[in-house]
Amino acid sequence: MGRFTELKRESFEANVALPRHGLINLTFGNASALDRSSAVFAIKPSGVDYASLTPEDMVVVDLDGRKVEGRLNPSSDTPTHRRLFLAFTEIGGVVHTHSSHATAFAQAGRPILIFGTTHADHFNGEVPVTRKMTLEEIASAYEWETGNVIVERMRGLDPADFPGVLVNRHAPFAWGPNVSKAVEAAVAIECIAHMALMSLQLAPGLEPIETELLNKHFKRKHGAGAYYGQALEDAKPPTAKQS
Amino acid sequence: MGRFTELKRESFEANVALPRHGLINLTFGNASALDRSSAVFAIKPSGVDYASLTPEDMVVVDLDGRKVEGRLNPSSDTPTHRRLFLAFTEIGGVVHTHSSHATAFAQAGRPILIFGTTHADHFNGEVPVTRKMTLEEIASAYEWETGNVIVERMRGLDPADFPGVLVNRHAPFAWGPNVSKAVEAAVAIECIAHMALMSLQLAPGLEPIETELLNKHFKRKHGAGAYYGQALEDAKPPTAKQS
Amino acid sequence: MGRFTELKRESFEANVALPRHGLINLTFGNASALDRSSAVFAIKPSGVDYASLTPEDMVVVDLDGRKVEGRLNPSSDTPTHRRLFLAFTEIGGVVHTHSSHATAFAQAGRPILIFGTTHADHFNGEVPVTRKMTLEEIASAYEWETGNVIVERMRGLDPADFPGVLVNRHAPFAWGPNVSKAVEAAVAIECIAHMALMSLQLAPGLEPIETELLNKHFKRKHGAGAYYGQALEDAKPPTAKQS
Amino acid sequence: MGRFTELKRESFEANVALPRHGLINLTFGNASALDRSSAVFAIKPSGVDYASLTPEDMVVVDLDGRKVEGRLNPSSDTPTHRRLFLAFTEIGGVVHTHSSHATAFAQAGRPILIFGTTHADHFNGEVPVTRKMTLEEIASAYEWETGNVIVERMRGLDPADFPGVLVNRHAPFAWGPNVSKAVEAAVAIECIAHMALMSLQLAPGLEPIETELLNKHFKRKHGAGAYYGQALEDAKPPTAKQS
Repeated sequence: MGRFTELKRESFEANVALPRHGLINLTFGNASALDRSSAVFAIKPSGVDYASLTPEDMVVVDLDGRKVEGRLNPSSDTPTHRRLFLAFTEIGGVVHTHSSHATAFAQAGRPILIFGTTHADHFNGEVPVTRKMTLEEIASAYEWETGNVIVERMRGLDPADFPGVLVNRHAPFAWGPNVSKAVEAAVAIECIAHMALMSLQLAPGLEPIETELLNKHFKRKHGAGAYYGQALEDAKPPTAKQS
Repeated sequence: MGRFTELKRESFEANVALPRHGLINLTFGNASALDRSSAVFAIKPSGVDYASLTPEDMVVVDLDGRKVEGRLNPSSDTPTHRRLFLAFTEIGGVVHTHSSHATAFAQAGRPILIFGTTHADHFNGEVPVTRKMTLEEIASAYEWETGNVIVERMRGLDPADFPGVLVNRHAPFAWGPNVSKAVEAAVAIECIAHMALMSLQLAPGLEPIETELLNKHFKRKHGAGAYYGQALEDAKPPTAKQS
Repeated sequence: MGRFTELKRESFEANVALPRHGLINLTFGNASALDRSSAVFAIKPSGVDYASLTPEDMVVVDLDGRKVEGRLNPSSDTPTHRRLFLAFTEIGGVVHTHSSHATAFAQAGRPILIFGTTHADHFNGEVPVTRKMTLEEIASAYEWETGNVIVERMRGLDPADFPGVLVNRHAPFAWGPNVSKAVEAAVAIECIAHMALMSLQLAPGLEPIETELLNKHFKRKHGAGAYYGQALEDAKPPTAKQS
Repeated sequence: MGRFTELKRESFEANVALPRHGLINLTFGNASALDRSSAVFAIKPSGVDYASLTPEDMVVVDLDGRKVEGRLNPSSDTPTHRRLFLAFTEIGGVVHTHSSHATAFAQAGRPILIFGTTHADHFNGEVPVTRKMTLEEIASAYEWETGNVIVERMRGLDPADFPGVLVNRHAPFAWGPNVSKAVEAAVAIECIAHMALMSLQLAPGLEPIETELLNKHFKRKHGAGAYYGQALEDAKPPTAKQS
C-alpha cells in the first residue's frame, strides 16, 4: 500500500462514476484528484476498461509530470490535467469525457449558449469553446498544448464560475474544487448540451437568458449569498484564480 | 418520529420516483405532498442527493412558509410549491423537474402544442408556457414570483384540466390531486415533449388535433363520463378551481 | 383458476415485455392474445400499472365483446383489438403502444417510408398511416371505429406483409400470427421509425429502397423461400388474408 | 464438446456484448471469431434470441463455407463474414449490427465524415459507405455480394486503418484483429455516428478535421508510435493488408 491510498480511492470513485452517469463509451475519458499540499494527483491508467478498474490501478503523478506511485501508465491525457492543475490554483479535480451531446458542440466548434436556469445553476455564462489548435501545437507536446488552449480561453474568466470548457474538434474538460464536483460539472455540461441542442431545433435563433436571471440562479448556488443546499455541505472556496 | 410520518413517506416515494422515471439529473427537481387539513406539506431537502435520501429527511413546511418538522433546509423552490398549493385549492402534490425535452420547450419559450392522443390523455389542450419573469420579479422573492407567473398563466384554466406548466427559460412544474398523480403528470409532460419535438421535425407547421379528438381522449380518462381504468381506483375530484 | 390460464399467461408475458423493450411510459399500451378456436382473447385490464400486473389480472373477452373471465375491466382499447381479430383472420395477437418515435410519425400523419433493410426485414413496404378519423367516428363508438380505419387502410394489403399501422394523430397498432410476434412487430416499428427520422434529417428528400432489395430482405425472412432462422422455429402461416 | 470450444466461447462473448452495448434490437446483428490457422470461424446461429444464446449454440464454419460444428443453422449473413475473412487477411473478427445512428447514415447513403478526435481515435478518416448494390447482386448470392461491395469500397484502404464500413441502404459491418476489437469498432461507429448527426444539426456544412489532428489521434493509439494504453496489452498487428 502506497502513501496516496485515499487520493487514489477518491480518483477511482470519480472515474467509475463516469460510465454510471452515461458520459463514457469504451475507455474514452478520465478523472483525476489532486492533493495540492503534496503536489500530486491520482489519475486513471491509460486504456484500461472501467469494468475491471480498481483503486490500486490509479496512477499518482506529481505536478512536474513524474510518476510517483503505480505500476501502470497514466492516461495519455495526463499532461492536460497537469497543465490545468498548474494554471487554476483553486481546483482539486479534473474530468475529461467524450459525452455525446457536449462533444457534438465541441466538434461543431460552437459554445453552448446559456438558454435556461439549468445551465445558470452551473455556469456563470456560456460553456466556452477553445480556438482550434495550430498544426505546431498538434505536432509538438499535444496533450500539454491542449491544456494551454484551455488556459488561453479561460483568460479573464474565473474557473469557479466556468467549471469547464469544450476543446474545439475534441470534447469537454471539466473541473471543480474536488474531483467529485468536477464529475458533477461534467454531468451538467452534457445535460445542458442536450437541452440546448433541442432548444435550438425549436427556435434556431434563440437568444441567451437575461443577465439578471443568470445571476439569480448562479448566485443561488455559488458564492457568499448562496442559499441552495445544506450548511453542513462543504463550503465552496470563495475565489479560484487562474495563474 | 414526528406527526407527519405518513406525509413524509408519501413525499419521499414521489421524490425517488423522479430519477427512476429518468426525469432528474444530479439534484435538479423536487416533489412535495400536501396535507390540506393540517395545512402543511412535506418537501425534499435542498441539494441532497437522491441516492442517499430517506423519508425522515423530508422537511415539513406549513402554508405560511414556516418549517414545522425536519432538521434540514427545505428545497430552495419551496415558496413556488407553497404558492401553487395556495392558488390551486384542489391539488395535493407538486412536482418540479428539469426533464430534458420539456425543458427544451421551456427554454425556447414555446408551449407544447397538442399533436396527438398521448397528449390528450393528460392535458385538455396545450402544455402552457408562462411569460418571462420581469427583472423586478427575478430580483425580489424569486421563487414565490415563479409561483405567481404560473398562477397568472393558469388564469381561466382548470388545474385539473392542465396539470402542469412550463416556466419560461426554466423548466416544467406539474401537479395533481395527490403527489403520485403529480409525478404521473411530470412523466407525461416529458414524454409528450419528446414526441412533439420529433413530430415538428417531420412536419414543421403541424396543426394541433381537432377539438373533438381532444375531448374524446381527455374525457375518456377524466371527469364524470370517464370509462378508462378501474372503479376501485380513487375517483378524481370533479372540479379543481383556482383561487 | 379459469379455463383460459394459458391464454392469460401468454397475454401477460406480452404485456410485460412492452415496458422492458422501452415501448411504454406509464400505462399507455396493451397487448392481447387470441384463441381463435374458442373465439376469445385475453387482454390487459384498463389503467393497471405494469409493475403490479399478474397473469390472473388479464381479462378474457369473446369476439362479440362480452367479458368471459376476469374481475377487472378490460383495456378501453378492447373494441379496436376485437375489430382487428375479426378482420384479419390469420392473426393471433395485437399490440398497441405509444412508443415515442413511431408515435411522432403518427402524430405528423406520415407513413414510415422504407429506407433500408432493417425495415424490409419486417415490412413488405412502408408502415402505412390511416386517414384521420371523422368527427362522427370520434363521437360514436370511437375505439371500434379506430379499428375500422385501420382495416380500411389495410384494404388490398396482406396483414402478414404489413404487421402494423400508424393511426393518424394517435399511435401504432401491430399484430402477428401470435402475440409474441406482434410484440416483435411493435419493437420493429419503433426501431425503424427512429432510424427513418434520422435518415430524413441527413437526407431530407430520401427515396425508398429499390423493390428488389425490399423483396430480397422481406422474403429472406418470410414465406415459402425464407432461409433466415431455424427449421425448428414455428413456421409462419403462408397466407394471412383480410376479411 | 467439439474441437472449437474456445473459439465458440470467444464468439459467444462478442455476440452477447452487442445488446449490452445497446447496438442490437431483437435479433438484428451477429459477431464471428476466426481461427485463421484452422481456417474456420464461429458465428451466431440464425434468428436465435440473444437472451437464450449459449456458447454451444455457436456454429463453426470453414472458409469454404461448409459447416464444421454445430447443430443450428449459421447466421444468414455468414457468406458476408466469410468474404471479409478471405479478403482482409489480417483480421480475426467481424461484427454486423443495425445500430440506430450508424444505420441512419447507411440508409441515407452518406459516409460519416470525421468531425472530431473521438472519431480519429478509431478511424484514419471517414467511415466509408459502399455503393448501392446492383439488381444482379441482390438477386444472386446476396450475402456474398454484400461482402464484395465492402471489399470493393475498401480497395486502397488498410482494414487496420478503417475497421468498418457502412453498407448502403443496409447497416454497418466492423472488424478487427480479433472479435473483441471488432465489437469495439462497432461501438465506436455507433457513437461517432450519433455525434456526427448532432454536429451536422448544429453546423450543417461542417468541414472534416485537419489531417494533422487526425494523424495525431489515430497514431496515438495505432501503429509503431502508439503511446496510448499499456505495454502488457496485446500489440496490434502492424499491417493488415487486403487480398
